[in-house]
This record gives sequence, structure tokens and C-alpha cells, in this order.
Amino acid sequence: MSAPGAATRVVAFSGGVGGAKLVAGLAQIITDDSLAVIVNTGDDFQHLGLSISPDIDSVVYALAGKNDVARGWGRRDESWRFMQALAEVGAPTWFQLGDLDLAMHVWRTARLNQGAALSEVTAEIAARFGIRAQILPMSDDPVRTQVHTTQGTLEFQEYFVKLRSEPRVTGFEFSGSAAAAPPPAARSLLDESAPSAVIVCPSNPFVSIGPILAVTAWSDWLRRCRSPVIAVSPFVGRQALKGPAEKMMRELGYEPSSMGLQTVYGRAFDAWVIDRADAKDADALEALGVPCLVTDTVMRTTDDQTKLARAVLDFSARVVASARRAG
Amino acid sequence: MSAPGAATRVVAFSGGVGGAKLVAGLAQIITDDSLAVIVNTGDDFQHLGLSISPDIDSVVYALAGKNDVARGWGRRDESWRFMQALAEVGAPTWFQLGDLDLAMHVWRTARLNQGAALSEVTAEIAARFGIRAQILPMSDDPVRTQVHTTQGTLEFQEYFVKLRSEPRVTGFEFSGSAAAAPPPAARSLLDESAPSAVIVCPSNPFVSIGPILAVTAWSDWLRRCRSPVIAVSPFVGRQALKGPAEKMMRELGYEPSSMGLQTVYGRAFDAWVIDRADAKDADALEALGVPCLVTDTVMRTTDDQTKLARAVLDFSARVVASARRAG
Repeated sequence: MSAPGAATRVVAFSGGVGGAKLVAGLAQIITDDSLAVIVNTGDDFQHLGLSISPDIDSVVYALAGKNDVARGWGRRDESWRFMQALAEVGAPTWFQLGDLDLAMHVWRTARLNQGAALSEVTAEIAARFGIRAQILPMSDDPVRTQVHTTQGTLEFQEYFVKLRSEPRVTGFEFSGSAAAAPPPAARSLLDESAPSAVIVCPSNPFVSIGPILAVTAWSDWLRRCRSPVIAVSPFVGRQALKGPAEKMMRELGYEPSSMGLQTVYGRAFDAWVIDRADAKDADALEALGVPCLVTDTVMRTTDDQTKLARAVLDFSARVVASARRAG
Repeated sequence: MSAPGAATRVVAFSGGVGGAKLVAGLAQIITDDSLAVIVNTGDDFQHLGLSISPDIDSVVYALAGKNDVARGWGRRDESWRFMQALAEVGAPTWFQLGDLDLAMHVWRTARLNQGAALSEVTAEIAARFGIRAQILPMSDDPVRTQVHTTQGTLEFQEYFVKLRSEPRVTGFEFSGSAAAAPPPAARSLLDESAPSAVIVCPSNPFVSIGPILAVTAWSDWLRRCRSPVIAVSPFVGRQALKGPAEKMMRELGYEPSSMGLQTVYGRAFDAWVIDRADAKDADALEALGVPCLVTDTVMRTTDDQTKLARAVLDFSARVVASARRAG
């Protein structure tokens, strides 16, 4: 049974920065509470006793208009005095914690220690920031991305931040994903079989979208849902705008294209939104019967975000869900 | 058995801000590692998951020259951006945490969670700050000052910061003091029976010096030690320069004078250093056979701190330990 009005819901799956930009665009168009964002928590970690959820924070900051557009992560007008003092006392400083950003980590940690679930703290903070969209951690249960590399298995943040994604990747593991359930607040969404659109944001396929799909309830729901699932490629000219997605693709033997992604995802999605720079990849996918929208996917301004969001939603209305559920 | 050279040691008992000023003066004179400071931890508390030790931090900041002299607590050149962001997310903001100060709390909490003792973390940070004096928490075991008031029993910080010391005090309790042992690093000091000087800093008798004396090993050591114990009155013109000492004295039926303090402390100390404004109180104490030094005790500048420290040390050299140990 769907909740009343639930058929108007737009569902987005997102990782951090790149995904958060499209989510912000969607929120410019869908200004009520019918936008639900399922956010990766695989790169959550404990640091200096603080519970840090980088992707949730990126989405929250983007939707609150508090994100730093130039730096690409963290909060706008951030300052770093805490980090200076942290270095003075001899604490590790490889993970940057801005003075403003830190409030999020300290308060989240305190609320979790009080017994609140991650989804509850997230909803509380989103409400404080005046965010109407529903931001849902993929699970309240801990899922931790482990990166298998030629240098051994690394915690995600160790690989990503400390070692600047330099080790050669051989695979991934999402510890805890088998036992991870979606948060209680996702129930009405999971009961819904035909939302108006399902969008996979331009996020890293392995470490942003991968962990969400590793939570059985979400991959089951994607298979079950009767709406077309539209994925936006994170590649532009076969390069990732930010982060190690391209490097990971190559190291694992995939080409960093939407065709490569289609292989990685095993045709889990119905259609692709592809940058003009990769129009040829779109032709190849279309030849296989996979609908593609070729458009500008680089989001430099909030206007770019809204334009892409509108293009994706329009495209979604034209695509028919198909092969995915035949498999 | 005393350690070699241990007889040159100067021992100071201190609470936060007022005491820390005299400690800083002593450290100007005693520039090697023969100054040991026993610091109150009764007002330590957990806030937002952080382990906060206000008095230790006051002493550390004062000895590192990082204290804010004008504000009277916390770090110099402090900023408050974290607090602004904390208010935004809806967290409690009654306890002020500066961006720089916060590094101390976060790192201490992380080290304690790693299994380090409070005395170890304190020593590590003091070393990072180039502090030669030995800063010893009165105990690594938690002792928590509870304030009995006509409004019920309150945690110290709740009484002191949240309620601005307004409730009427009826008594104090130092939870955990019966089981609290001095830190291992205090062993050589506790084995020493005749340090060159023992100084009780101008700190609140009830909530700064009181908790230290509630740790049996320290009050036993004070009784046992053959050096004179010199206490510096925190009152000037029968008023406390800062904090609720005077109010507490009145509410508990004592007059806020060195005579009143002598009653509160039960003659635990041999001699008093008293401000010129309270010269009459000195006369009364001298009449009872208690030696007094009347001098300027207000420390506005670092020069004032050094002057008072020198006066106290000189006075200490002239006083003979006496009645205290007869009792």
C-alpha cells in the first residue's frame, strides 16, 4: 500500500559531492517533501571519537545551501582554527575538520550516544536547516566500505583521504551490509512500487552507489519498482570530475564510460544520462537498446544543477521501464 | 626515601583561573622541572561526549602562555565559530567551547578512549606546549563535585555555568573521592616529606582546593609533610575577585576572610598570604599565632604573578611548620 500522494515521490540515490549537486538541483524543482534521497553511509567512520558521515553531510549542506562550491566539499565560509590547535596538541591531522563542520560531527556523535538512530539525527538536523526533502541514510546499521588493494585491505577513509586513493584497487567489501536494514523512516518508500522517478546520481559506482546496492532491501526494491531507473553517468569525456572513480574503473578492468558502468552495474538501471563529451558511448548503449539522454552534466552553478535535474526528470517521464525487470 | 634533588621541589595546589595565575608566576621563577602542580579535577565533566577538565586546561594554558588574560578563562585569540554552528544544529550551547580550546577536549577524549590516563594525556600535552613544570591531576580516578543547594543537588558545571552559581549552597560532596588515588606520576612526590615549599593557590576553598583535600592521599601527605604549608587567600577586601567563593562562604555561615578560611580548612595550613585590603584579618590571625604575609595579591599582569610568587616563596622560607602537625 502506498501512502496518499506517494506516487508523486521522486527517489534519488546519492553519494557525496557529485551526487549532492544533482540532489540540490532536484530540490530546486521539487520543493515539497516528495523528494527522498537515499544516501551512502559506507564511508562513515569514527575519527577522534567522532561519528563522521561525509556523504550525508554533503547532501545536507548542499540542500541547505551551506556547501562550499569552490572547494567541492564541506561548508561554505569554513575556518580551520580547530585543526591548527589539534596539530599543536599532537593529534592526527590527516582528516580535515572545519570549525563549522565539526559541530555536525560533535552533535551527531552526542545524539547517537544518547541512543538516537543516524536517520533520526539526520532528520533533526535537516529540519533545523529548513530542508524539506527526506534525507535517508541507506541504513542505521553500520556498513563500512573496505578497499582491497595491492597494499592490503584499507578502511575507506584511510585509502581515500590518508593515502589519496593512490593504492591500486583490487576489489571492495561492504562490511555489515548483509545485516543492514533500511531505516524505519524508509518504510513507506519501500512499500511504494511506482514512484514518479528513480534517479541514480552521478556518484562513484563502487564506493558511493555500490554500498547502497549492497543493502539487499534497496537492490530488491530497485528490481521490484515499476518506475524506470535513470542513472546519471559520473564521467565526462571518460574522466571523473572529482574522486577516484576513473582510476578504480581502470584498475578493475573496466573502461571509464557509461558502457563500462553498465557492465559494472549489471544492467540494474533502465536508462542513462550521459555528457555530450561521451556522445559516442551513448550511441553504443542505444544500439544495445538502452535509452540515453545526451546533455551537459557538468554542474558548476546552481543553475546547472537545476537544468540537469529538470532534464533528468523530463527524460525519466519518457523512458519505459523494461529489460531490468526481465532479468 | 626522597628522589635525588627532590628536596628542591616546590609543590602547588591549584584550581582554575586564580590559582593558575600564581602557578604561572611560580613557573617564571622555577624554570626547571622541580615545580609540581596538583590540580583539581572535581569540576571535570562530560559534555557532548567530550571529557572536559577546566582546571587542568586553565593551568596548562597559563603555563604555556596561551591563556586569555582579559576574559579570565580559556585561550587567547579564541574564536567561536564552532559554537555558532552548534547553535544552528540545535545542540545545547550553555557551555562555551572555543574553536582552539575544543582541540584540547577532542584530543583528550580520544586519548582517554584509547586507554590513556588523564595524567598521561596531561603530561603529553604539557610537553607539546613546552611546559617544564609537572602538572598532575589530583587523581586519574573520576571525582565529581556535587553542589547541594536549596534547589536540590546539582552537578558542578550545572550549578556554576548553567545556573551562574545562583542557587543557595547548603554543602558539597565529592563523588568518587573516597576511592580516588593520586596518579602514578605523583608517587615520588608523595614519598617526599620535605619539599622546599608547599603552596595552596588562591583558589575557591570549597570547589577547587576542597576536592583535592577530599582525596585522602593528598590530605594525608599535607599532614605528614615537614615543610610549612602556605595558603594564599583568594579574597581581596573580603571579596572573591572571580567566582562564587565569597557567596559560598556567606551561604555556609562563614565570613569571607582568611579567618573564615582558617575555620573552613580546620587549620590545615601553617601560614597565610593576605591582601593589603584585608590587613586587619591578618592581625587577627597573627594574634592566634598564625604567621601572615600581607602583600598585594591581585595579579593583573604577568609581572604581578611573578612578584606574588616570589613573595610567597620568600615568606615560605621564613615560616616554621608547626601547629598543623600537632593536631
